[in-house]
Amino acid sequence: MASTAPVVRHARREDVPAILGLIRELADYEHALDSVEATEETLAATIAFAPSDPSVVSPSPETGLPITEPVSPSKPARCLVLTDPESGVVVGMALYFYNYSTWRARPGIFLEDLYVKQSERKKGYGKRLLVELAKEVEAMKGGRLEWNVLKWNEPSIKFYESEAIGAQMMSEWVGMRVDGEGLPKLAKLLD
Amino acid sequence: MASTAPVVRHARREDVPAILGLIRELADYEHALDSVEATEETLAATIAFAPSDPSVVSPSPETGLPITEPVSPSKPARCLVLTDPESGVVVGMALYFYNYSTWRARPGIFLEDLYVKQSERKKGYGKRLLVELAKEVEAMKGGRLEWNVLKWNEPSIKFYESEAIGAQMMSEWVGMRVDGEGLPKLAKLLD
Repeated sequence: MASTAPVVRHARREDVPAILGLIRELADYEHALDSVEATEETLAATIAFAPSDPSVVSPSPETGLPITEPVSPSKPARCLVLTDPESGVVVGMALYFYNYSTWRARPGIFLEDLYVKQSERKKGYGKRLLVELAKEVEAMKGGRLEWNVLKWNEPSIKFYESEAIGAQMMSEWVGMRVDGEGLPKLAKLLD
Repeated sequence: MASTAPVVRHARREDVPAILGLIRELADYEHALDSVEATEETLAATIAFAPSDPSVVSPSPETGLPITEPVSPSKPARCLVLTDPESGVVVGMALYFYNYSTWRARPGIFLEDLYVKQSERKKGYGKRLLVELAKEVEAMKGGRLEWNVLKWNEPSIKFYESEAIGAQMMSEWVGMRVDGEGLPKLAKLLD
């Protein structure tokens, strides 16, 4: 008997083309398709994948913890994919890494990108992916699940702040970034 | 002949009391001393330390890369400490972890906390710590050095946006957070 619930599992190496497709759709939604430099090769080199063996289920049903290649500074990301219950096609993803709260001296999860294909919206898939991440934070005894949202994306903010999701907006903080030509310039500043 | 330049190196386990002292000073500065739950024990369990052997220099002068215990989901943080050139006392720190840019499919560094003791300001120590992190991003072929700042902290924002540091403010984004009682609630939402 086929299940009608979507499957959420850690990405395997063979999911890379589907992941790149979702990244490109998300960038288009954020009006920034030109900014996508990711390729199948670079994604394959920087995400910690679950084994291709389909008998290995990640996250582990017993511990709730991921079973993937080890994460490391050069491969810090893990990726959950959500597959359509009928077709098995990847229609959503949550790409994340591990962050840290100094005040609590506890690790947590930072969700870098959450995306569900536009044709698959209103099915609770985004919520399902957030719930899976909250479960991993709980399983690892972490302190926080965090992510950023574009301020103009009011539908998403409303959803995140809803009673169900229960996120708080960190309005008193703003992010700073050094990238591109700024990085070698800063690295050489005191030479 | 004693050097007069401060030494910046990765924290060793024996630096934990000094690190906790700086964390408490920083929290006090951010009007949030009550929020500090970190203890020497929890810090010791969640930071990837350099070996105590002082003959091991981290970051490596050859590669620019850290030589510490491996980072992992439960121990995601590394910590640079800056020591006073005269006394050898730890007077500043940069506590960080590894983040990820999906669009670039490249890792980077997120600076969780930067702090220099108030008595040691105006000596360029904060800049020195940022430069060391930019060097590590370069050494690891990373894409970004990022951090958050409190919006009311105008002196810091001015410094970060200065020609020397060259950071951009990510004003179009806002952070979202689920923590505390919200985490088990979200984890159980679909049960």
